[in-house]
Amino acid sequence: MHARILTLLIAGMVTGISPLYAADTDQMSVTAPATAQVCAGCHGPRGQGGGIYPRIAGQPAGYLMQQLQLMRSGARINIFMQPVVRRLSDKDIGELADYFSGIQAPFEPSTRPISVVALARGRELVTVGDWREGAPACLRCHGPELAGVTPGIPALAGQSSEYMLTRLQAYKNTEDGSLPVVIMRDASKGLSDGDLQAVAGYIAHMKPGERLQMLRPPRDPSYEFIPQFPDNFKPPPESAIPAGPYGDMIWYGLQIFENTRDAAGPYVGDSLDCSSCHMDHGRRPYSAPMWAAYVLYPQYREKNKKINSLEDRIQDCFRYSMNGAPPAADSPEMQALVTYFHWLAIGLPVGIKPKGAGYLKLPPPAHPADIQRGAAVFAANCVLCHGEDGQGRESHGEQAFPPLWGAKSFNWGAGMERISTAAGFIKANMPYAAGGTLSDLDAWDVAAFVVSHARPQDPRFTGSVEETRKKYHAHDSYYGRVIDGRLLGAPAKPHG
Amino acid sequence: MHARILTLLIAGMVTGISPLYAADTDQMSVTAPATAQVCAGCHGPRGQGGGIYPRIAGQPAGYLMQQLQLMRSGARINIFMQPVVRRLSDKDIGELADYFSGIQAPFEPSTRPISVVALARGRELVTVGDWREGAPACLRCHGPELAGVTPGIPALAGQSSEYMLTRLQAYKNTEDGSLPVVIMRDASKGLSDGDLQAVAGYIAHMKPGERLQMLRPPRDPSYEFIPQFPDNFKPPPESAIPAGPYGDMIWYGLQIFENTRDAAGPYVGDSLDCSSCHMDHGRRPYSAPMWAAYVLYPQYREKNKKINSLEDRIQDCFRYSMNGAPPAADSPEMQALVTYFHWLAIGLPVGIKPKGAGYLKLPPPAHPADIQRGAAVFAANCVLCHGEDGQGRESHGEQAFPPLWGAKSFNWGAGMERISTAAGFIKANMPYAAGGTLSDLDAWDVAAFVVSHARPQDPRFTGSVEETRKKYHAHDSYYGRVIDGRLLGAPAKPHG
Repeated sequence: MHARILTLLIAGMVTGISPLYAADTDQMSVTAPATAQVCAGCHGPRGQGGGIYPRIAGQPAGYLMQQLQLMRSGARINIFMQPVVRRLSDKDIGELADYFSGIQAPFEPSTRPISVVALARGRELVTVGDWREGAPACLRCHGPELAGVTPGIPALAGQSSEYMLTRLQAYKNTEDGSLPVVIMRDASKGLSDGDLQAVAGYIAHMKPGERLQMLRPPRDPSYEFIPQFPDNFKPPPESAIPAGPYGDMIWYGLQIFENTRDAAGPYVGDSLDCSSCHMDHGRRPYSAPMWAAYVLYPQYREKNKKINSLEDRIQDCFRYSMNGAPPAADSPEMQALVTYFHWLAIGLPVGIKPKGAGYLKLPPPAHPADIQRGAAVFAANCVLCHGEDGQGRESHGEQAFPPLWGAKSFNWGAGMERISTAAGFIKANMPYAAGGTLSDLDAWDVAAFVVSHARPQDPRFTGSVEETRKKYHAHDSYYGRVIDGRLLGAPAKPHG
Repeated sequence: MHARILTLLIAGMVTGISPLYAADTDQMSVTAPATAQVCAGCHGPRGQGGGIYPRIAGQPAGYLMQQLQLMRSGARINIFMQPVVRRLSDKDIGELADYFSGIQAPFEPSTRPISVVALARGRELVTVGDWREGAPACLRCHGPELAGVTPGIPALAGQSSEYMLTRLQAYKNTEDGSLPVVIMRDASKGLSDGDLQAVAGYIAHMKPGERLQMLRPPRDPSYEFIPQFPDNFKPPPESAIPAGPYGDMIWYGLQIFENTRDAAGPYVGDSLDCSSCHMDHGRRPYSAPMWAAYVLYPQYREKNKKINSLEDRIQDCFRYSMNGAPPAADSPEMQALVTYFHWLAIGLPVGIKPKGAGYLKLPPPAHPADIQRGAAVFAANCVLCHGEDGQGRESHGEQAFPPLWGAKSFNWGAGMERISTAAGFIKANMPYAAGGTLSDLDAWDVAAFVVSHARPQDPRFTGSVEETRKKYHAHDSYYGRVIDGRLLGAPAKPHG
């Protein structure tokens, strides 16, 4: 396979202009920079790609720019692109990226036959993921239309299955452990070649602008629920969701969990989903996984000084982390969430704290966490998804990655406002697929940076910041502290 | 010990009148039958007992009569009583039983020193039981003052520790498997001699008329919660209830469970408690134990054709089995019950049906269940606790054993109205401590007898018995059937 691709690539490179598109150069836009003609040779006059050549039209400009720079420097190895890009200036790269990014070239779904089984498996991997294999859903990062997320995450929609398969295989087998390559390496390493083909085939068969739903995968009747001890628990895969009303309720719960603003909108007051803090569909250890929460509630919580049912606890998530108004204990939304969590926990012993419950507890830092240093850690590790301004990223007007502070983020009542909680979460889980790679010091500092920003008022606000701090923030919180000359937790000034 | 008791007993018997009470015979009531004087020799002039001689004053007449008859026939072996009772006629026995039953002889608590540890252990066994050892609480059957339950269950209050210990040891070591002896054999067989002494000592130290509460036992910090596989699950003992608010909530839940009418009165419309159908504090396998229910909900139920949260399911218990109005899903009572069930299930895997869940499923009977035959089975096995009229038994104005039909029993919406459910429950659990001893045929027939009686209307009643039967009783139910010329489920005629 590799040998054949190599041959084709060489064929394209040596002629300078690919025979596939040689006849199309006259369609080139007048605003095209001169250098675009070289690209058009393989990628097509409008950058639409085809066969083994990736579609570059409509890709986020930042992504195109970055890839060209990486290939020019040799950091991304591509022996066919390198001779071309080494001649490009920064200005050339900027112009090319802007140009191809701005092209809305239409594309057609592949007409190549694909088996029903492969299409279903591809859809499962693209929209749901396969947690047995450590594979998150493609749409989680590439956006609900797989149209990419500005500035750094590429569109997949419109790519050919040949190109997708080549890239997925390259990611699966790479030894590059740097970000963001490691994310794709982790996502693909558990998948078989058949799985990669299914993903590639499914994507190639997508219609332009098709909005992907998280579609329920076909049921795998062979999955066995067996009792598991709490130190090595793995929740069941989505394909084990049973048929019938119980399965429907689980699926509804999962939809609320993943797309909380869509499926439980009236209860949400910010731009987060349950899955913003409970990653991988609430499955990930040390990301406060829901299977662990399920078996540990009811429990006493110091936060409200009473026994909390699981429903109470979920209501607090809506009240604080979602900055909203919680659904009632017996509402369909609540029942769906509880049913989903119950199902995730099948086989896990009740009431015994399993490994991976809650967030990681980091040892206290040697020195108080350093906000300024944290800002640098943030800039180096977090902006791909969360943006320089910490406001996350949007994809086609939808929040694709969560805002970490400000009006659209969790309020001051959320547990994540504690430096220690944020540090433990970050250490274990951030950057995505590279959890554990930040030093403890980096995790503490970047956590401090994140939680030292303004955010919505604590719903328990008594009217006095000082009193509210004393009552509810007498811990490692910046609430009621002055940071950069600004009193955190101060009520917003009235408009006008 | 036995040898010494024997000596004392012989001493009493040979003189005819015990030296202990020789001086007291003048206090004998004028209505005493002549034969009572013989009894007074050992049991005291007012039957107050003392030392190794049991208190017979104030015992239920039925109990006294039965014991005298059993000793006369030799079915209850007592070599010292036998020479005396063999001379008694049925009339004598009736007179003696009536006489001593009617005496309200005061008693004093024992002044013999007892250790704090023994008192606490005794209190635990008397008021809570010890489920690790298969020992139910004494007060469960002997009434909340241990004053006995008319007609067949003896009072324990006022008995000396010597007598209690002798009897408990005799029960523990008996080979008599007949009812009701087997109940006491089962209750005591797991207890150490120290435990029996603690029970005897605690009872001897009771004040007359003292109403026993189910008191929280001292905490056993050595108890370990370990994950257990669903085929051999045992819930933790009450002594493992942790300190603090979580433990307090568990204990509150247990109180509601055991004394539902006291602790959750507004929600109960009949004379049952949760523990009427879920025996041994909701612990007993095949008695729909709460640890099994905890791990199996949420689940879909055909009964209401929706996913039921655990709270939904509990609400149905209040609606149907308790013929009441359920507490809200987020009420303190509901939270306490759920917390109690959660704690019972610690270590049990979520979502996997454990052995002993629900009620026993009996194979279908070869012939339709026979109500008339069931009446005979009932008369032979059930009346000690449930009465000839099936209305249970009262102790000092309180329902001590549940009514099985009629206005104070579960309504037609309860699951127990199904012949098969009742048969499975009875086969596994009835008579108490002798579950499994009835033949399948007996269980089917006595179940049919029980559920073929009138009971409160189904809350889902549509206004038509026929329609209600079709909608909600299209199974093995007598609802809407004419039994003994009476249409079951027919609305009560208006008064006047």
